[in-house]
Amino acid sequence: MSDNRPILVVNGPNLNLLGTRQPEIYGSTTLADIENLCRGTAADLGRKVECFQSNHEGAIIDRIHAARGTVAGLVMNAGAYTHTSVAIRDAVLAAELPLIEVHLSNVHAREPFRHVSYLADIAVAVISGLGPDGYVAAIRHLVARET
Amino acid sequence: MSDNRPILVVNGPNLNLLGTRQPEIYGSTTLADIENLCRGTAADLGRKVECFQSNHEGAIIDRIHAARGTVAGLVMNAGAYTHTSVAIRDAVLAAELPLIEVHLSNVHAREPFRHVSYLADIAVAVISGLGPDGYVAAIRHLVARET
Amino acid sequence: MSDNRPILVVNGPNLNLLGTRQPEIYGSTTLADIENLCRGTAADLGRKVECFQSNHEGAIIDRIHAARGTVAGLVMNAGAYTHTSVAIRDAVLAAELPLIEVHLSNVHAREPFRHVSYLADIAVAVISGLGPDGYVAAIRHLVARET
Amino acid sequence: MSDNRPILVVNGPNLNLLGTRQPEIYGSTTLADIENLCRGTAADLGRKVECFQSNHEGAIIDRIHAARGTVAGLVMNAGAYTHTSVAIRDAVLAAELPLIEVHLSNVHAREPFRHVSYLADIAVAVISGLGPDGYVAAIRHLVARET
Amino acid sequence: MSDNRPILVVNGPNLNLLGTRQPEIYGSTTLADIENLCRGTAADLGRKVECFQSNHEGAIIDRIHAARGTVAGLVMNAGAYTHTSVAIRDAVLAAELPLIEVHLSNVHAREPFRHVSYLADIAVAVISGLGPDGYVAAIRHLVARET
Amino acid sequence: MSDNRPILVVNGPNLNLLGTRQPEIYGSTTLADIENLCRGTAADLGRKVECFQSNHEGAIIDRIHAARGTVAGLVMNAGAYTHTSVAIRDAVLAAELPLIEVHLSNVHAREPFRHVSYLADIAVAVISGLGPDGYVAAIRHLVARET
Amino acid sequence: MSDNRPILVVNGPNLNLLGTRQPEIYGSTTLADIENLCRGTAADLGRKVECFQSNHEGAIIDRIHAARGTVAGLVMNAGAYTHTSVAIRDAVLAAELPLIEVHLSNVHAREPFRHVSYLADIAVAVISGLGPDGYVAAIRHLVARET
Amino acid sequence: MSDNRPILVVNGPNLNLLGTRQPEIYGSTTLADIENLCRGTAADLGRKVECFQSNHEGAIIDRIHAARGTVAGLVMNAGAYTHTSVAIRDAVLAAELPLIEVHLSNVHAREPFRHVSYLADIAVAVISGLGPDGYVAAIRHLVARET
Amino acid sequence: MSDNRPILVVNGPNLNLLGTRQPEIYGSTTLADIENLCRGTAADLGRKVECFQSNHEGAIIDRIHAARGTVAGLVMNAGAYTHTSVAIRDAVLAAELPLIEVHLSNVHAREPFRHVSYLADIAVAVISGLGPDGYVAAIRHLVARET
Amino acid sequence: MSDNRPILVVNGPNLNLLGTRQPEIYGSTTLADIENLCRGTAADLGRKVECFQSNHEGAIIDRIHAARGTVAGLVMNAGAYTHTSVAIRDAVLAAELPLIEVHLSNVHAREPFRHVSYLADIAVAVISGLGPDGYVAAIRHLVARET
Amino acid sequence: MSDNRPILVVNGPNLNLLGTRQPEIYGSTTLADIENLCRGTAADLGRKVECFQSNHEGAIIDRIHAARGTVAGLVMNAGAYTHTSVAIRDAVLAAELPLIEVHLSNVHAREPFRHVSYLADIAVAVISGLGPDGYVAAIRHLVARET
Amino acid sequence: MSDNRPILVVNGPNLNLLGTRQPEIYGSTTLADIENLCRGTAADLGRKVECFQSNHEGAIIDRIHAARGTVAGLVMNAGAYTHTSVAIRDAVLAAELPLIEVHLSNVHAREPFRHVSYLADIAVAVISGLGPDGYVAAIRHLVARET
Repeated sequence: MSDNRPILVVNGPNLNLLGTRQPEIYGSTTLADIENLCRGTAADLGRKVECFQSNHEGAIIDRIHAARGTVAGLVMNAGAYTHTSVAIRDAVLAAELPLIEVHLSNVHAREPFRHVSYLADIAVAVISGLGPDGYVAAIRHLVARET
Repeated sequence: MSDNRPILVVNGPNLNLLGTRQPEIYGSTTLADIENLCRGTAADLGRKVECFQSNHEGAIIDRIHAARGTVAGLVMNAGAYTHTSVAIRDAVLAAELPLIEVHLSNVHAREPFRHVSYLADIAVAVISGLGPDGYVAAIRHLVARET
Repeated sequence: MSDNRPILVVNGPNLNLLGTRQPEIYGSTTLADIENLCRGTAADLGRKVECFQSNHEGAIIDRIHAARGTVAGLVMNAGAYTHTSVAIRDAVLAAELPLIEVHLSNVHAREPFRHVSYLADIAVAVISGLGPDGYVAAIRHLVARET
Repeated sequence: MSDNRPILVVNGPNLNLLGTRQPEIYGSTTLADIENLCRGTAADLGRKVECFQSNHEGAIIDRIHAARGTVAGLVMNAGAYTHTSVAIRDAVLAAELPLIEVHLSNVHAREPFRHVSYLADIAVAVISGLGPDGYVAAIRHLVARET
Repeated sequence: MSDNRPILVVNGPNLNLLGTRQPEIYGSTTLADIENLCRGTAADLGRKVECFQSNHEGAIIDRIHAARGTVAGLVMNAGAYTHTSVAIRDAVLAAELPLIEVHLSNVHAREPFRHVSYLADIAVAVISGLGPDGYVAAIRHLVARET
Repeated sequence: MSDNRPILVVNGPNLNLLGTRQPEIYGSTTLADIENLCRGTAADLGRKVECFQSNHEGAIIDRIHAARGTVAGLVMNAGAYTHTSVAIRDAVLAAELPLIEVHLSNVHAREPFRHVSYLADIAVAVISGLGPDGYVAAIRHLVARET
Repeated sequence: MSDNRPILVVNGPNLNLLGTRQPEIYGSTTLADIENLCRGTAADLGRKVECFQSNHEGAIIDRIHAARGTVAGLVMNAGAYTHTSVAIRDAVLAAELPLIEVHLSNVHAREPFRHVSYLADIAVAVISGLGPDGYVAAIRHLVARET
Repeated sequence: MSDNRPILVVNGPNLNLLGTRQPEIYGSTTLADIENLCRGTAADLGRKVECFQSNHEGAIIDRIHAARGTVAGLVMNAGAYTHTSVAIRDAVLAAELPLIEVHLSNVHAREPFRHVSYLADIAVAVISGLGPDGYVAAIRHLVARET
Repeated sequence: MSDNRPILVVNGPNLNLLGTRQPEIYGSTTLADIENLCRGTAADLGRKVECFQSNHEGAIIDRIHAARGTVAGLVMNAGAYTHTSVAIRDAVLAAELPLIEVHLSNVHAREPFRHVSYLADIAVAVISGLGPDGYVAAIRHLVARET
Repeated sequence: MSDNRPILVVNGPNLNLLGTRQPEIYGSTTLADIENLCRGTAADLGRKVECFQSNHEGAIIDRIHAARGTVAGLVMNAGAYTHTSVAIRDAVLAAELPLIEVHLSNVHAREPFRHVSYLADIAVAVISGLGPDGYVAAIRHLVARET
Repeated sequence: MSDNRPILVVNGPNLNLLGTRQPEIYGSTTLADIENLCRGTAADLGRKVECFQSNHEGAIIDRIHAARGTVAGLVMNAGAYTHTSVAIRDAVLAAELPLIEVHLSNVHAREPFRHVSYLADIAVAVISGLGPDGYVAAIRHLVARET
Repeated sequence: MSDNRPILVVNGPNLNLLGTRQPEIYGSTTLADIENLCRGTAADLGRKVECFQSNHEGAIIDRIHAARGTVAGLVMNAGAYTHTSVAIRDAVLAAELPLIEVHLSNVHAREPFRHVSYLADIAVAVISGLGPDGYVAAIRHLVARET
């Protein structure tokens, strides 16, 4: 069954600085570039995305709650909150949305505390290290699996 | 010594969705139902409750600070922040309020990361799995121990 | 469905000394006081309790076996056996009784070995630190959940 | 700089049974389907893939050695050897090939021993749970990053 | 090379209550006292400080982002977030500011969870237990190392 | 050298409920059935068994002591005491009897605390998951190894 | 339902040396003796066995794959691969065969790394220390449980 | 202040077999020998001992309860229960008796699980490896410290 | 209350090589420079320091013993002995001197074994990474806290 | 066989301060008192002791080497070196002397790092918490076991 | 007793690439160079070597089996299998050959998983970091210890 | 570039007793034998060695400091200090000397605490179990790598 509701793309803390922050790890693409890439990817599939970024854990939770029943799926790069937030995990469970967890860099090649994810085991899939392509692959997969 | 100040009832992240979210774990009672139950329990004992819910860790801390010296005790279901927030722990210590930690579901029967609590060792008591009855028992005990 | 079978209240090792032993931790209430409180709580709800205390792990197992099919639920403060007895856990599972685990003191604020419970994950609920009120809340909840 | 050497696609132990083995975890697509999908993806980008599957750790090592200097990159689903083979890790390092680690299912939602990877920290990227789409995304990214 | 940009002084959760909260651990100095002490220390060195306090993790991250390129260094007592926030760590890395981590009390003599710091290994220095003198030493060192 | 002393068969806590307790794990065979099966197996080999069951750790120790020098070997399903009783381990060592440890269900597929055995490393053999057949194989092996 | 397909008996690395290798641990029986014993046991039950031994993990995987659908069950002494091979575990799961894990010596009395088994929790039963009798008990049980 | 109440000497599980059991570890002295030695030591100091041995954890707890207020101190070799019984620990605390923990053999040179003691941190002293002399030293010290 | 006894400054193993050893970690200041800086700092406050360096754990213990009652406080950079010496810890406790632990480099950013300190929890304060300024801040704080 | 060589009594770091240092833990007896007590105990048994104390690990090793073949046994309170010195352990093994490890206080009731002993498993016996009586019991036992 | 059987030199996975693979870690010497060096070393001592390399764990096991009784000793650089193969360990034990474990690079200075060896505790000696000289020293020692 | 400075050979605690101490582990060679062997080995290569042994950690540190810039390399058997001394590690780093760590026995086959080395990861190579040959191989390698 196809679905024409939008896909929600959430970016977490510090991702607003993308393109300026540590380019040797995160590349030179900005958050606006990524959000445009997501819009374009969805448009190619006849769909829309809604984009949201916040440095506030509570604001991310509120946004996910609001998405409950109104979006088709969630692509989220929760940044550092991936590794520490049980509350965002619970918000995703409560919103009952299929989640694809995305990381720009390969978190498995970084500090050990970044190998812990409170989201990975409740996600459909995890993509780490594909850079902005990770968002593209995530949106495509969320749409493709509806059928 | 009896005390006629209100009891503060704090509910943490995702508890605003109660009754809709994962009813097989959390039941069908809403947050409004629980807050009314708390008000009724207190009224039966000639007391009042103040109710607060937020998905924002900082807002919960601010609310606990404001309660310092003005409430008789704290009944808190800090939800996921129970397992991750040293800052809320410190707020409770700073506010010098007797705390009863409440969980609707039995956290001991869930994921291992829910077995960690930054609040339990500074609480008067911990009640887990009694559903809304946990709030009732907590309010009654806070009032009873004043005498 | 309401049930008119009694509730079994089991107290484990050293609880026979209640009221004399370490009152700064356990208070001055005696075991007889607690058993009377349980009887009164049940009577108010039109029910009965059966009370049992033993310092012998095997005797507690035998008593739980005997309760199989004849009582409506189990309120148990297994004392130190909470932290060490897989055999009592198995007895509860074998007796197929709903269990509420009760501790007079807040075990989460005591030695680390008291944070381990072989009963908590098979219990309906866990109440720790409410003193004798914990038994009252447990009996009320067991009766209430039958409906 | 663009590169017109082929991409090597390696599938490890038990993946020859794909489509028949535990379809609730791995889906009904066969290994031949996946290899055809890889060929098609590469063809769309004007490239070729070489496909290899073996249940023998040593054979996989031999194949990676042979690829040294002759392929543009490696897309590998090493299956169970992901979690146990330091020797395959060393072969990838020795072959000096960019690697993308792919898993059909989301390994983060399975047994703890599948959360360990001897390949992830030496990979460009890790994709887990996208099903056959993971191979597509990996090939596209390997080609895209050459430029 | 000398620098005449201000130093940013950030205080984290619960530090707004300083002077009232647990004086046996934190002393009777208020946050205003500390901020004045910081202003005086900087003035003696011909410099300015900007002071910020929040109980909200997200707000602290926003403030550090805003300081990027506009301040000479960061003196931060992140309070409880020191022990739990990867997001603030990432904000400091993204802002590319030299950091001195300060704690009023000696965290090494307190609970084990306060021995973990997500900031210490990316800091220039860590000062723990000097009380308000810690801020003074931190500001002096940040200025001195510019030369 | 053949031996015509009996074999002692000991069953530990909760095994008296066999056949009624959790049949999906333990099957529908009763303890009496198992003891009869043991008697029959021994009789086929021209031997006898002595059977003992208790829920009391101390009683099991006493029984093993009494068997010292009077039985040819020990087949024991110590149930939950397998995982917690150093005292029964010491009794077996003191009685200097060859032991075969038997479990009806496959303990390796159950909770982690059932993977610990204080008996396994002092046993001749361990049989787990063969159901009542485990007792048969144990008795046969104890008799066969005498020769 | 009875089944007349053969039972597959797999022996893993180093078991080809049985009878010559460390007889104080493994006894003087050769692999041929064990395979004959298995054939005899099966014949007594009106069945056949197929025997296979290899020192190559990949060859064992290939053999198990080939058994899929053609044998009634698997008796396997995977030797050292028991403790290290996730790939053989996956092969057994993929082949959907009932498995009984057998060890000649009592692995629980040996080095700690032999206490880890990647097969035990997916096996019907585990037999350790019965010597060649373990194979006999395993074959009998596999046949008996079909009914 | 001198005290003329008796000293209670408790010996735990398996110590009834002393002199016959594993003499290479425990020596050839019997329990009666040790109890006589204790009586003689006390008599030399103008005191009495009461001796008790049981293999039952509950019986040891009952005996310690009965000693509350009636004996001057407790010399206990709790045998294997030393390493597993929180309940005996609690009984000692409840009885408020000074305890000296005694072991015949040097437990520090045996299995790791014998290095754990639930009694050591609540004891006045621990003596391990002095053989029967340990009881003598313990009684002497309990009497000497009264003054 | 002011105190005019000297402050003892102790430097531990390898600090005699300062200025030559690994300057990228420790800087180019020599031990003599640091001791002069300490003398100057104390003189500005109307006080004296006594300086001591040794590579011998026992000699440092002897020196701390000798300081008992004759100095006002202890500033110590125990170097590598910080991480391994319980004996120096005991010497500080025995000498009953207020201690400030100093490290030139930020030990929290180095090897994990340097994150363990046997001194930190018995110190007034810990300063790590301020270079020679750490000694200055320590002396000032020891003097300031006397009042 | 009786032996008339002396017993060596070694006291380790900080024990020279006995009687002045932390009397609430170690009591008011001085090292000279203890050495005299040892001399007296030995004299009563017709023997001599040699006493040695040092704060230097190397000096203790040298002293133990010198004792090789010339003393009948070693009574050692190695103080903090008990918990950290493999070298003293090796010296005792090299000197091939029977060792009794003595601690004045009950180390099991103190910090966890004092629960580790590099000497306990190579000692004849360990005595902890008997105060100076521990030395007496140790000397008596060393002499008694010669016969 | 001198022995004129050859020494077996086994090289494990990826060592066939020596001289081309990661020369900054492994140097520029090829496997052929090393095997020639081994032949020369043996020849100087009047002996022969047999050389074998494989990337297949099973093939290495087969080769070691074949060496049983026919070679004087084993010099093995098992490469990555050192850290993961219990089966090769068992093959060495079964072949009853003296083993010297060799590594070209210093494995102790590399990733933690390379610090684990399943061979080291059953080897005569371990040489790590001497480059090709390690093989020379190993062969010399194996020959020298025969006498 | 060749170097004609001497090689420093350091032996740590208890190695002065070589030849007398535990010959079943360490052999009958004395320290003088080893030092002569080292001198001979160096002489064959046209070089000298300086030999040093001490049981004092501080003395070893002093000796290494003195070697800075005056010797070509360090061959050290630090004995038990290998496993406990961060200070000797720091001395080696400070002296900037290439180190080869040598052990007479195979430490990997002994107690777990001997598997920890504070020197191994900063050494050029580690040789364990070659007996006196280890010193020879170490000196040869240090000289050979200069070229």
